[in-house]
Amino acid sequence: MEKNLLAGIDIGGTTVKLSFIDVQGNILTKWEIPTNIADGGKHIVKDIAATIEEKLAELGLNKSHLMGIGIGAPGFIDVKNGIIFEAVNIGWKDFHLKEEIETLLAVPAFVDNDANLAAVGEMWQGAGKGAKNLICVTLGTGVGGGIIADGEIIHGQSGMAGEIGHIAAVTENGAPCNCGKTGCLETVASATGISRLALEALDKNNTGKLTDILAQHGKLSTKDVFTAAQENDAVALSVIDEATRHLGLVLANLANAINPETIVIGGGVSRAGDYLVHHIRRYFNRFAIPKIANETKMHIATLGNDAGVYGAAWLAKSKAMK
Amino acid sequence: MEKNLLAGIDIGGTTVKLSFIDVQGNILTKWEIPTNIADGGKHIVKDIAATIEEKLAELGLNKSHLMGIGIGAPGFIDVKNGIIFEAVNIGWKDFHLKEEIETLLAVPAFVDNDANLAAVGEMWQGAGKGAKNLICVTLGTGVGGGIIADGEIIHGQSGMAGEIGHIAAVTENGAPCNCGKTGCLETVASATGISRLALEALDKNNTGKLTDILAQHGKLSTKDVFTAAQENDAVALSVIDEATRHLGLVLANLANAINPETIVIGGGVSRAGDYLVHHIRRYFNRFAIPKIANETKMHIATLGNDAGVYGAAWLAKSKAMK
Repeated sequence: MEKNLLAGIDIGGTTVKLSFIDVQGNILTKWEIPTNIADGGKHIVKDIAATIEEKLAELGLNKSHLMGIGIGAPGFIDVKNGIIFEAVNIGWKDFHLKEEIETLLAVPAFVDNDANLAAVGEMWQGAGKGAKNLICVTLGTGVGGGIIADGEIIHGQSGMAGEIGHIAAVTENGAPCNCGKTGCLETVASATGISRLALEALDKNNTGKLTDILAQHGKLSTKDVFTAAQENDAVALSVIDEATRHLGLVLANLANAINPETIVIGGGVSRAGDYLVHHIRRYFNRFAIPKIANETKMHIATLGNDAGVYGAAWLAKSKAMK
Repeated sequence: MEKNLLAGIDIGGTTVKLSFIDVQGNILTKWEIPTNIADGGKHIVKDIAATIEEKLAELGLNKSHLMGIGIGAPGFIDVKNGIIFEAVNIGWKDFHLKEEIETLLAVPAFVDNDANLAAVGEMWQGAGKGAKNLICVTLGTGVGGGIIADGEIIHGQSGMAGEIGHIAAVTENGAPCNCGKTGCLETVASATGISRLALEALDKNNTGKLTDILAQHGKLSTKDVFTAAQENDAVALSVIDEATRHLGLVLANLANAINPETIVIGGGVSRAGDYLVHHIRRYFNRFAIPKIANETKMHIATLGNDAGVYGAAWLAKSKAMK
């Protein structure tokens, strides 16, 4: 049998997602194991190697069928050497991920940042399928991003490229961000940020649906805000307007610089779907160069939690073929 | 003799700059001819071919010494095929520049946007020497830019990447820009933009050195504004503060996304030198991710008007060697 199978792995703080994907991009199987963060994360690679060997045996396959292993991990990464400088949630520091996996499995392994690989996954098999120039922004608890130019991930000088969440959005009196700055896009466009904007809006104008929901549940989710906005609640509409104005401006300015074919919007907040795209698009079109406003596509991500394993498999494919 | 000579050509609206540069980046000779824009620019390629043949003969060389020809041109360009979609100042429309040059000279020719090649020139032999990740912004009559990631020019989906001048800087009530939008970086950070800001500032507060200069000369140059600011004139200082706040924010947000090693600032406004860099840096450091603020270098361009021919020669070298 041909060596045409890719292992796509996405290492998160609580679970490791794994998959076998063929070179055409079809998932043969996918599964998860818990991330064992004990002892500074030193058991994780052993767990991954063991579960891959088991799954291969279960399918009547062996390591000779694997063309390569792609791995997405959080944190700062030396992608060339597959070293994780630091991944706080996992406990790794100067961790030689590529080398450790290759030692255990004797299959070429390639490592990149999880947000970059989610972007690549959407480019390969998701909402950006076929695009060679793509910006992916993930609106979750935080805001992550990946930028692809001419089919290649932009890493930048020290692997920090794509930090769309920390682009300055509110330039005066912005809310504090985890990165140490204030007013980052993440503070106004993440799920956390949108909830915060809603609470602030109620401080000024405590009326309407959000007032009722807050009184009933003691908190406000992004979903509450979008639902109320779609029912024309004035406070909720003002919050969505603010969040999407910042998103539209940041994405337009990135598009003015990068000229992507497609912008893909993923993460929990993207469940608001076309309603979200419509609102972002209003501001995007205002701030983008007219030709870029006309030509840039904007889509909701389609791969959900699988984007990372697809992207990891793509990485393995493109690197192993070189 | 070896085929190790590069022709670097920079086509502008009034002059065509030409050079022979060796593969190590040493200029053997450089010269100019006028750009003949008569008849929709149809004579320009013939003029270029003729002057190159003459110059080769003058130096006792011939076409067999040329490894390749690199050409920078303004406007929208299909770089793959070397076609200028439109260059208004020259009169070209759907002009097959690569093909025409190759037909006349029988040497491989490669074409790219002049702003991109200025960035590449600074990367190869100028202020960004050795950097593989670089942003170059040119503050002249307008604001141009070029972005290089991992040693490659970012072109984007339709060749429009690097349009730093049209990033939205003033998001409410901005001045109109040539591109059809309002509030672009170009409206506040070009030479024209800084003069306009100064006139607006005098409308509100007609005091100090700029009032005197305007009364005397009937106009204000960017140089007037910088000189007055360096002498602590309050109005001039407020103008420099405004222009560099926009520049610092735009460059920080680009750096947050692209993570360059070096930012190079060129064009007429950059004659203000370290004083300009100091002011941009203040805002850059405020809006960039702390690690990026610490690590990103910022320099004034060193190649002046030669950046374009250096970049064109680099293009010829990198393409001809492939």
